[in-house]
Amino acid sequence: MIKNATAICKHITHGVYIISVDNGKQKNAFTAAWVMQVSFDPLLICFSINPQNHSYKLLQEGGICCISVLDNEQYPAAEHFGKSDIKDKMADFLWLETTKAPALADSLAYFDCQVDHYSDAGDHKLVVCRVVDAAILNDGDPMLYNDTDDMDNSDELY
Amino acid sequence: MIKNATAICKHITHGVYIISVDNGKQKNAFTAAWVMQVSFDPLLICFSINPQNHSYKLLQEGGICCISVLDNEQYPAAEHFGKSDIKDKMADFLWLETTKAPALADSLAYFDCQVDHYSDAGDHKLVVCRVVDAAILNDGDPMLYNDTDDMDNSDELY
Repeated sequence: MIKNATAICKHITHGVYIISVDNGKQKNAFTAAWVMQVSFDPLLICFSINPQNHSYKLLQEGGICCISVLDNEQYPAAEHFGKSDIKDKMADFLWLETTKAPALADSLAYFDCQVDHYSDAGDHKLVVCRVVDAAILNDGDPMLYNDTDDMDNSDELY
Repeated sequence: MIKNATAICKHITHGVYIISVDNGKQKNAFTAAWVMQVSFDPLLICFSINPQNHSYKLLQEGGICCISVLDNEQYPAAEHFGKSDIKDKMADFLWLETTKAPALADSLAYFDCQVDHYSDAGDHKLVVCRVVDAAILNDGDPMLYNDTDDMDNSDELY
């Protein structure tokens, strides 16, 4: 066990994202910080998800997701989608239709994705996604996960 | 092809890191931005590497690396290790011995890693690493890749 692992890991820079999923019958969305670009051509983005997360099942069933980038004033959205016990979690937010799962309308940008493959990652799963469409939606600066200490106890985060 | 992909991808937040590798006979180090934590327990970090990168061969042979976190004043180091045509690239920098590959002494923190497995990622390869040791070395704020536009032409970056 590495001493002080949480404090050391705060030095790894992550943004904050809302990832929506859709299995054709049910949609859900959750907050994620472990997201990065992994390929230029094809354009691929990878994220790490807790397989206990309810959205993981919908992701596996639907094979699609949309990654919306939060700006640094959207902490309430980050906190909201970091919880799993909210009924109609996606209500009260405006969503844009994409070719796959919906994008958060007031996010900075979105990446409309098709799952390419999964890989193991300890207590999480890596999801490698092919970006089929993407757009900038609003001006602003991306939220940094390192600035959001009090989200650590969210139960549908990562 | 997604229009304006580079500008849209700038909304994905990445830090800047120096990753050192060692095959037992030869060491090398390169600049990377596509790095993230992917698991709490075991503590795993994943990065995406261009398989054309000379360091990739050394990484595969040695199976070890060290990820050093740059602070926002270390642009010269980011630029230096982003180039592949420098002889004795690691000279003139101070390195700390770890259990695996060396850590950059004036970085913010390091993660001493054993490669766990690889996964495909388009024109790159994903490297999932088990963190065997880690430490904070210096105070400072991590460099953000989004702030470093002019590194885009580095040939041993990512």
